[in-house]
Amino acid sequence: MSAPDSLLDQLVEALQCLPGVGVKTAQRMAFNLLERNRPRGRVLASALKEALDKIRHCDHCRNFTENELCSICADTSRSSNQLCIVEGPADVRLLEANTDYQGRYFVLMGRLSPLDGIGPEEIGLSQLETRLQSEPVEELILAIGTTVESDVTAHVLSELAQRNHAKVTRLARGVPVGGELEYLDPGTLMTAFEGRTQY
Amino acid sequence: MSAPDSLLDQLVEALQCLPGVGVKTAQRMAFNLLERNRPRGRVLASALKEALDKIRHCDHCRNFTENELCSICADTSRSSNQLCIVEGPADVRLLEANTDYQGRYFVLMGRLSPLDGIGPEEIGLSQLETRLQSEPVEELILAIGTTVESDVTAHVLSELAQRNHAKVTRLARGVPVGGELEYLDPGTLMTAFEGRTQY
Repeated sequence: MSAPDSLLDQLVEALQCLPGVGVKTAQRMAFNLLERNRPRGRVLASALKEALDKIRHCDHCRNFTENELCSICADTSRSSNQLCIVEGPADVRLLEANTDYQGRYFVLMGRLSPLDGIGPEEIGLSQLETRLQSEPVEELILAIGTTVESDVTAHVLSELAQRNHAKVTRLARGVPVGGELEYLDPGTLMTAFEGRTQY
Repeated sequence: MSAPDSLLDQLVEALQCLPGVGVKTAQRMAFNLLERNRPRGRVLASALKEALDKIRHCDHCRNFTENELCSICADTSRSSNQLCIVEGPADVRLLEANTDYQGRYFVLMGRLSPLDGIGPEEIGLSQLETRLQSEPVEELILAIGTTVESDVTAHVLSELAQRNHAKVTRLARGVPVGGELEYLDPGTLMTAFEGRTQY
């Protein structure tokens, strides 16, 4: 094993910090950037540096932002009566892109997972409680996953909401739109059957 | 569609210059770097910038290097009697890692493809001919692919070598090591049968 020069090796090594990128993919990326895409590679280098330097958590909802408040928290036209709880910034993007929700958000940045050292403080529960006490939140919408850890998180969140007299709702669970019963897992099928609605 | 703040969008956009990375993967990469991997993200940004600024083509073999000559061309202990032609820098790495080849390389940085505007000049054939005329090359080893375009390139290279009185060899084609006949494509099977060797 030899092969040229350390800067290339350093780049291949560094690219492996990206999720899902191993040594082969990193090599392909490095060669591709160097051979065909130098201008866009430079754009990437500076966008990455600037994002890492300047993006922080919103003081109010914990989402990523480059200001003290993110654009949603700073938007005075949105209602404070609804507060949607999500696990990560990607979920905010998804909901904003695909629903007409006009309330506020709170981003947990994870889910309760004591074994990984993620407790109530890490997901900002005391900050959330302060918001529930100081804002006119009527409905807490739990837009979080359905894994075991998310279920535990949902349970803790609903207790917290009830202590503060807010209604709690959770995203409907059931048959995916476009899905066929045949391919559904038993748990989802049972949930969908129990939660059947008037047609 | 809204979602926060432009630096994040710029990063997601910039990450899509990587081969095989679409908008979903770019988002996942951006969130992952920002949430869990800021120090390694910074290393990536600076490794990328430095590589793009400093890595150039070796004057002698066209491989990537940060110097005038790459480490292989600069290594006086290697033989100039053999010259191995490859299509890209990744191939040099592969051969160096997996063979005990001790000769020199010449990197085409592509293959002949007139429709894409890649002609003899783009793959450095005149530079290669100068080397064949000025160096004691006895064997030109074609370590290039077996697609139609690579075959055409191989043909042109072999003519060039013969004009300059060098022997031309090409990597053996046949059954992959560890492979079963059952799964072989017909072309490879035919080639392997025709090229059978004494056991």
